[in-house]
Amino acid sequence: MTSSNPVLNAVCDDSDVNHTRELAAFLARLSYTDLPDAVLARTEDLFLDWLGSALASQGAHPIPLFERYAAKMGPASGPAAILVSGQRSSAYFAALVNAASSHLVEQDDLHNSSVLHPATVVFPAVLAAAQDLGKSGQALLLAAVAGYEAGIRIGEFLGRSHYRIFHTTATVGTLAAAVAVGKLMEFDQEAFINLLGSAGTQAAGLWAFLRDAADSKQLHTAKAAADGLLAAYLTADGLTGARDILEGEQGMAAGMSSDARPACLSDRLGSRWALLETSFKFHASCRHTHPAADALLLLMQREGLSHQHIARVVTRVHQGAIDVLGRVHVPQTVHQAKFSMGTVLGLIAVHGKAGLTEFDELALNDLAVAALRDKVSMVLDAEVDSAYPQRWLGRVEVETTDGRVLQAAIDSPKGDPDNTLSREALEDKFRRLLAYAGALNADQADVLIQRVWGCVRRQA
Amino acid sequence: MTSSNPVLNAVCDDSDVNHTRELAAFLARLSYTDLPDAVLARTEDLFLDWLGSALASQGAHPIPLFERYAAKMGPASGPAAILVSGQRSSAYFAALVNAASSHLVEQDDLHNSSVLHPATVVFPAVLAAAQDLGKSGQALLLAAVAGYEAGIRIGEFLGRSHYRIFHTTATVGTLAAAVAVGKLMEFDQEAFINLLGSAGTQAAGLWAFLRDAADSKQLHTAKAAADGLLAAYLTADGLTGARDILEGEQGMAAGMSSDARPACLSDRLGSRWALLETSFKFHASCRHTHPAADALLLLMQREGLSHQHIARVVTRVHQGAIDVLGRVHVPQTVHQAKFSMGTVLGLIAVHGKAGLTEFDELALNDLAVAALRDKVSMVLDAEVDSAYPQRWLGRVEVETTDGRVLQAAIDSPKGDPDNTLSREALEDKFRRLLAYAGALNADQADVLIQRVWGCVRRQA
Repeated sequence: MTSSNPVLNAVCDDSDVNHTRELAAFLARLSYTDLPDAVLARTEDLFLDWLGSALASQGAHPIPLFERYAAKMGPASGPAAILVSGQRSSAYFAALVNAASSHLVEQDDLHNSSVLHPATVVFPAVLAAAQDLGKSGQALLLAAVAGYEAGIRIGEFLGRSHYRIFHTTATVGTLAAAVAVGKLMEFDQEAFINLLGSAGTQAAGLWAFLRDAADSKQLHTAKAAADGLLAAYLTADGLTGARDILEGEQGMAAGMSSDARPACLSDRLGSRWALLETSFKFHASCRHTHPAADALLLLMQREGLSHQHIARVVTRVHQGAIDVLGRVHVPQTVHQAKFSMGTVLGLIAVHGKAGLTEFDELALNDLAVAALRDKVSMVLDAEVDSAYPQRWLGRVEVETTDGRVLQAAIDSPKGDPDNTLSREALEDKFRRLLAYAGALNADQADVLIQRVWGCVRRQA
Repeated sequence: MTSSNPVLNAVCDDSDVNHTRELAAFLARLSYTDLPDAVLARTEDLFLDWLGSALASQGAHPIPLFERYAAKMGPASGPAAILVSGQRSSAYFAALVNAASSHLVEQDDLHNSSVLHPATVVFPAVLAAAQDLGKSGQALLLAAVAGYEAGIRIGEFLGRSHYRIFHTTATVGTLAAAVAVGKLMEFDQEAFINLLGSAGTQAAGLWAFLRDAADSKQLHTAKAAADGLLAAYLTADGLTGARDILEGEQGMAAGMSSDARPACLSDRLGSRWALLETSFKFHASCRHTHPAADALLLLMQREGLSHQHIARVVTRVHQGAIDVLGRVHVPQTVHQAKFSMGTVLGLIAVHGKAGLTEFDELALNDLAVAALRDKVSMVLDAEVDSAYPQRWLGRVEVETTDGRVLQAAIDSPKGDPDNTLSREALEDKFRRLLAYAGALNADQADVLIQRVWGCVRRQA
């Protein structure tokens, strides 16, 4: 129960309290009037950002597989919307398909220190349940906040050892989605304890798929959102769960972590708003590539370099980046290219950006990108690694063709809380995502934007 | 990758082959004509035994919760039968409810060395899919055999360290159910590799619920069967999965075991029929209590003892029994009583049996049972522990009220492969299970029995 990370140890010092019960008590008493304006506004930001990601994957493999599965196994209609198709189904299948959809284009949000993508699991579950239960926009926002606050703390609790093998957004995502739906259902402390038990015992998702470019990432978020929703509906109907699923000796930490810190579970509940620490994605790639991408962009602009001048790029990274990105050398698919540090830096160096269009058109078949990709290497850096996961530092070293060695550093990749995207930038990203997929026209996009910005005001 | 168990090391000696691929190749080529008569007959036995367990839980908490969830989230009708209600739904929800049902009364089968309950995950998935896909009785039997052979080997592969924290029937059960449905769909080797990836990355289920007598055991089997079926349907439609979900460095063994033995995965494929090693349950309690129950019964009959003569009972057990049974001292629910060694031995000593009726009527409120319960203790025994999990040895020591110390030992609890139940005994158990639940009348039970015994002959 100790960590080599002094920041986290300071933040999450242990004690004798039952942290799971404290977390459940907080979730039960949290009310809409407790939420600071900044939290409400940011939750709307996150909701819009999520909606764009969900719509952007329309028609892209493997999303139609999930749509067909929902059509085969679910009802022909229902209260909840499947976003990519406009079809309606039960809440369970809407959560399943929408969560698969929103994690595909690698544009959904990320919380740094938990390494959790909260939106792609929380919003599909809570939106489907809100439609099913006829809840207001305010109730939806409150429930989403509960899902973020719980999920982020559970991710921090399970620690880096968990993330080395388990896809935290899948495992912890099940609990985050469950908590959000439980809050929508106005659970009390006892119900939240049972809910955590039934969600935690379903928590699953391994990184093994990464090296094969397999489709599991979408399966993971689909199942996390749907399983979390299932846990909440069954708990509401009387299903009991383990009371100590997180900290217990046959619980999640015992089975799936070697550096868990229970005090993280109840860290500054009600005063720290972890949701505000969430980052928006700017580049359309794995978030582990963003610090280096931003640092390389800064260096090239500062030095007036073009990609032809670059002989070699070394990125100094945290261990998590090596674990997740180190499996792929020559990507075979667009999705795999998003997990290739070389390809991302190639797109940045050659084309100045790494958005959805660049990935689709240039990531696999642009010779200049491929040439730069092969000049990129990652090395573990002690400073970067000890700052992680609270901070995702970008450090690059470029050797030029004329023999100079140049360095650049950024401490907050674009989209991080202290380098965040404005509403204007978020609206622009949303419109680009929709245009990319041909999902909706500009007017429809504007209607959606105004609807999301109106969640706080809307009662039903 | 080494084990302290010499038997398993001898059976599963490692080598350089890719065992997952070997297992997938075997599953793909396995055909109905490969199956020995004894395997076919035993599969029918296991099918009937499972059907009885599923029907026996009609109306008992928490099964109606799963029925209502299926009604709410699933279609109003469909090709697959929900056994406890007679309602029909899609294959997904039929698998979900039937798997929850069949693990409730603690009468479903067990494979010793994998500590896997195969029937409760394999048959719900394969029956629902067979009804959906219009497959024959023979195809169902072949698919079930594939599920058993794969699931048992994967359970053995993950080893005892896995079972200490994870409920193997939940985790491995997801893969066993998936394989069975994949075989029904006539998957080739490549499809089985993808299927194992998509099933394995959903594998979940923790023992934490045991000490709280929570409802997770039914959630576990429900989700294992349904998730396995989901993996198969999505794989058939083109979803890819990790190619090395079992043995890979970010796979199941890496994340959820410390004593995994890859060679177990391909142990004597096609010559060893692991399904034949499965035990039927005689007592209606956790299988870890059965060896001691049989040994105590033997001792009392041999010595002509009544429970009033017993001052103390020590059962010498394997570590797994202590892990699973050691959490409960005074059971609060009938289900928890089935995991109380003292209560089970109390029923045996006072009433001569520990069947469903005894548990319902006597386990919690019979003073003589409670008195004997408090005289029972478990101690770890080196011989018993080293034989486990291949053999579940029963060793009891009784101190009588007149000061004698008596011992008894059994090497094969009733229902074990070398002490198995005859078809007549299985039919009797089936009728008792149905009568217990009031599920069907005697004539209906006979019809079902004859239908199951006819699987081999029936083509559709």
